[in-house]
Amino acid sequence: MTVYSVHFLPDDVIIEVESGTNLLQAAMSAGVHINASCGGEGVCGKCRVIIEEGEIESSRSSLLSEEDYQAGYRQACESLVQSDVTVRVPVESQLEPRALNRPRPGQNAARMAKEIGVEQLLKAGIFNPPFVKKLVKVKPPTHGDNISDLSRIINSLRIQHDVHNISVDFTVIKALPSVVRDGDFETTVTLAYRPSFVSEPESARVKLTYIQAGDHSDTNYALAVDVGTTTIFGQLLDLNTGQVMDTYGDFNRQISYGEDVITRINYSGKPGGLKKMQELVVLTINSIIEVICKRQKIDSNEISVVTIAGNTTMTQLLLEVDPKYIRLAPYVPTANFFPPVPASNLGLVLGEHVPVHAFPSVASYVGGDIVSGIIASGMYEDDELTLYIDLGTNGEIVVGNKDWMACAACSAGPAFEGGGIKFGMRAISGAIEDFSINPKTLEPMILTIDMKRPKGICGSGLINTIAGLFEMGVLEANGKYNRALETDRLRQGIDGFEYVLSWADENQTGQDIVLTEVDIDNFIRAKGAMYAGYLTLLEAVGLTITDLDRVIIAGGFGRYINLEKAIMTGLLPEMDLNKFTFIGNGSLLGAKLNSLSNHMRQAVKNVVNQITNFELSEVPNFMEQYVAAQFLPHTSQDDFPRVMARVSETRNLLET
Amino acid sequence: MTVYSVHFLPDDVIIEVESGTNLLQAAMSAGVHINASCGGEGVCGKCRVIIEEGEIESSRSSLLSEEDYQAGYRQACESLVQSDVTVRVPVESQLEPRALNRPRPGQNAARMAKEIGVEQLLKAGIFNPPFVKKLVKVKPPTHGDNISDLSRIINSLRIQHDVHNISVDFTVIKALPSVVRDGDFETTVTLAYRPSFVSEPESARVKLTYIQAGDHSDTNYALAVDVGTTTIFGQLLDLNTGQVMDTYGDFNRQISYGEDVITRINYSGKPGGLKKMQELVVLTINSIIEVICKRQKIDSNEISVVTIAGNTTMTQLLLEVDPKYIRLAPYVPTANFFPPVPASNLGLVLGEHVPVHAFPSVASYVGGDIVSGIIASGMYEDDELTLYIDLGTNGEIVVGNKDWMACAACSAGPAFEGGGIKFGMRAISGAIEDFSINPKTLEPMILTIDMKRPKGICGSGLINTIAGLFEMGVLEANGKYNRALETDRLRQGIDGFEYVLSWADENQTGQDIVLTEVDIDNFIRAKGAMYAGYLTLLEAVGLTITDLDRVIIAGGFGRYINLEKAIMTGLLPEMDLNKFTFIGNGSLLGAKLNSLSNHMRQAVKNVVNQITNFELSEVPNFMEQYVAAQFLPHTSQDDFPRVMARVSETRNLLET
Repeated sequence: MTVYSVHFLPDDVIIEVESGTNLLQAAMSAGVHINASCGGEGVCGKCRVIIEEGEIESSRSSLLSEEDYQAGYRQACESLVQSDVTVRVPVESQLEPRALNRPRPGQNAARMAKEIGVEQLLKAGIFNPPFVKKLVKVKPPTHGDNISDLSRIINSLRIQHDVHNISVDFTVIKALPSVVRDGDFETTVTLAYRPSFVSEPESARVKLTYIQAGDHSDTNYALAVDVGTTTIFGQLLDLNTGQVMDTYGDFNRQISYGEDVITRINYSGKPGGLKKMQELVVLTINSIIEVICKRQKIDSNEISVVTIAGNTTMTQLLLEVDPKYIRLAPYVPTANFFPPVPASNLGLVLGEHVPVHAFPSVASYVGGDIVSGIIASGMYEDDELTLYIDLGTNGEIVVGNKDWMACAACSAGPAFEGGGIKFGMRAISGAIEDFSINPKTLEPMILTIDMKRPKGICGSGLINTIAGLFEMGVLEANGKYNRALETDRLRQGIDGFEYVLSWADENQTGQDIVLTEVDIDNFIRAKGAMYAGYLTLLEAVGLTITDLDRVIIAGGFGRYINLEKAIMTGLLPEMDLNKFTFIGNGSLLGAKLNSLSNHMRQAVKNVVNQITNFELSEVPNFMEQYVAAQFLPHTSQDDFPRVMARVSETRNLLET
Repeated sequence: MTVYSVHFLPDDVIIEVESGTNLLQAAMSAGVHINASCGGEGVCGKCRVIIEEGEIESSRSSLLSEEDYQAGYRQACESLVQSDVTVRVPVESQLEPRALNRPRPGQNAARMAKEIGVEQLLKAGIFNPPFVKKLVKVKPPTHGDNISDLSRIINSLRIQHDVHNISVDFTVIKALPSVVRDGDFETTVTLAYRPSFVSEPESARVKLTYIQAGDHSDTNYALAVDVGTTTIFGQLLDLNTGQVMDTYGDFNRQISYGEDVITRINYSGKPGGLKKMQELVVLTINSIIEVICKRQKIDSNEISVVTIAGNTTMTQLLLEVDPKYIRLAPYVPTANFFPPVPASNLGLVLGEHVPVHAFPSVASYVGGDIVSGIIASGMYEDDELTLYIDLGTNGEIVVGNKDWMACAACSAGPAFEGGGIKFGMRAISGAIEDFSINPKTLEPMILTIDMKRPKGICGSGLINTIAGLFEMGVLEANGKYNRALETDRLRQGIDGFEYVLSWADENQTGQDIVLTEVDIDNFIRAKGAMYAGYLTLLEAVGLTITDLDRVIIAGGFGRYINLEKAIMTGLLPEMDLNKFTFIGNGSLLGAKLNSLSNHMRQAVKNVVNQITNFELSEVPNFMEQYVAAQFLPHTSQDDFPRVMARVSETRNLLET
């Protein structure tokens, strides 16, 4: 796409954006404050800017007089950049002092790890999918050569394809008599090479799992699935080429029975509850399979294997293995490794021959999704000391490199996903996702997902809002609002002191959307649990934050985090920003890689066998670290020099 | 038991019998002819003998006057030996000339191979059952030790029982959370050691297949099953001690849909037919399991494995694998080796964890029952050149030793099982099973199973009758009756010339039981097919009958065969009688051994991979051999010198 520069005046900030970028979003990215209360839907009319030079696409709304429109006024939220432009933010919208408006760190996209795909696997010589199809042509039997159908197939595999030591699934044998003859002695066999994560002897094993009449050797697919507590993503892979054919996500239908794993586990303890949970996740996956197969016009019978990565609870629920003891102290999972389970036994609308391979888990709260992410990140084979963070209700952290790894789960609580936050919501349309504040007027600039009028605030919005409020001195280090500030946006509400993000008449809720001190406390507890986790885990292996070469942030939530703002709250450690990488859905990525490479499967086993799990509650220093982290950004301000410098600079400027 | 001698006069033949032996049976065994037409039920009154010395138990029936009773007359069929006795056969019962009445070869029981059992396995160091139970006590998890339930079990198996490299069935994982706690962390696990016949890498493999709460380590059973076309035998084995606990047989309920494999295959080709056949054999096995478990007061859940041996058709029907191409030229079975199949998937009333291991087959008509018999016979590990014969509708033969083996199927037809014989019947109560004839009066002496009034003639009875008729010149070498003989027992019937074995008023059928020349033709074709098979197979490997060190006769039918009489008909080759051994139900015996010894399982794989199957119809000389065998005993009389000498001696005596 064409890239244009947008020059914001009077701040004199220039940002490069793609053609068609929304001007309000460009301003937010550039750190230029423009008052905006409606999230970007265009109904509050507060985000007026003057286009001084260049071309933008923006029609006049009723909120702009013909006269103003002719004078170059536009609503920023309704304006799309079509050339290099110079934009002046009028005084009523502008944030002073100018010095605060340093450019924000670049888009997270720039820090996204390049997703590993088949090209890398080919280059490394490890594109060896666990399921392979072979075309087998045999001679029809005669009186002089009447060996069994199966022996005929196996002999041909040996001679035509150099495949040896084959074992055979019983379903293949049942199908043999008719399939062999329906195909006029031309068949396609599916071979599974050392197909499971379960420990097996090293000797090469090949299993004949499926046989089809005729030539189907060019249609061999795998399904990689990330089974999240909230969302489930399915990805269709072509096992012949290694290409991703399609990806589709949907909400986990278990959600109606509870937002988090604990409520799901509780429900599964009721009569019929486990079965119900199992059916709901299967229903979700089936709907994903249906969409993908329809879109790609493929027969679901051509899918040879399903690889799923999920947390320990999601995995056990999918397999209908009672997760009760995951919830009860001392938090024991049933197993780390699960053998392959026939997809059809689980209720998946796939062939009887299709196995479901579930990623092994490390512990009750460090599941297959994290193992999958470790694989996707490559940290298990690098020299660099890496901290892998998966943010969520249950935040998981892994530290280590190719020589050793340690992991832990931090019970962050649901704040990052909007839980325990008065107007918290999931990251869907209308959720406030970005925020800045004019420290003089204390008026906010808010951006919502899809730029719809606000409905609430999502996890990344919460971080950005708290960071913004803290930076500008509206919020103190102890998580309390500065009572000295005079604005009707700060007030005593029924849940205590609160800041009004959006007035009732500007949003979809019909009431003022506020951020209360209780909300902020919940957030601080969550981020404090994460941060205490990093320190405790590092300390347990004799290291500190400064030893880290790299931090990898995973998770659908994680990828939308603004690094500097997250650091400002103390959710992430203060480090050189270049050391941070976003990996996106590491769980899905790892599942993909494991669908394409047996080599990777071996790595999975090694990772699980090698990694050391720490129960943070059992590590003496954890509580101390946790308490120390209950500040913005942290009690130990020395560990956040950049944040502290910035905050103090801001306060000084504001006081002048 | 006490053994007494019975001295028959005037033949002066002495035989040793167990206390309580029936006198008519003793006479038959001793080769002493006593007229007897009612099979031994005591209603014809023809078998009168005089007790000269000693004690017998015999009450007087209405067929014997008080005067005769006082004079020492008794009905032989109603008399049980209670001491050494001297018995005179009155002239009216006695067979002349005396010279013919040489003692018969001893009872078959004396030639029965001593059944190999756990003692032999222990001695050879190969009592290593494939399924073993271990008591595993684990410590309850704590916060400091909260590894998964499965890891806990596996670690304990390693430490407490030195078991390594364990893979785990998914059903075990599903049961784990509750079972582990129900047993208060004391469980019994079932381990399968390299459990199937299917080729697998040599490295030791252990699979955890079942877990029970508490200590069940002393109750671990296996079920060995011989799935015959006619009868099914189940045997319960204690896997801890290796002892046989019970054996029970029943007719295969498929019988109502046809006597032989061909009619079963045909039926299975009808809509729903395969399922029906499958259900019927399963129903039979279930009823056997029920009887045995009830009798032994054991819980069927304690059965860990089922090993079945059956012919190729029976195996495929049990597994519901379409046997269609077994029947159609060029007679192709679906597979030689079958992987383990869950018993519950087949409908067997056993635990979900229980696998069914089916013996592999060599070819469409050399099935797992023969492979099992080879194992039971030990011929696969002996130096001696052995001919293994399984007599039946499909007669199977194997020749070889530890270095090589060859096999073939002979389509003998159903004559040995009573098929195609006018009064043919299975070997059940009332079937004529033994026969001799007074060459002067041409009156028969017949013995029936259970000594009930005759209903028909079974396979062994057919051999004995034809041999007796031939020996005494009533029947010629070409299978035709000697028309010169004068007796109302020889006559023209509606199916041609026939001999009356039993008059209508003496038997249960209400009509004369006869043996027709058509019956005899059918028998000669059957025995000729077998004999031609021996010669063709031996010839194919460059050997002859005289090279044989040993002949092993297997099969429920085989064990009741009188060797000399079978040789007289040409069904068995003429050899030193000491070279013959009966093995009984070799199929069941092999299944037993394979339930007790993994070593034996390895032998099974080797046998199947090593053995060469010959399609007799494809061997040029077979038809020639078959035609040559269509005589009593054979066209080539030189191969039966003893038979010929005896026949000529008899004829000479009769002519004097």
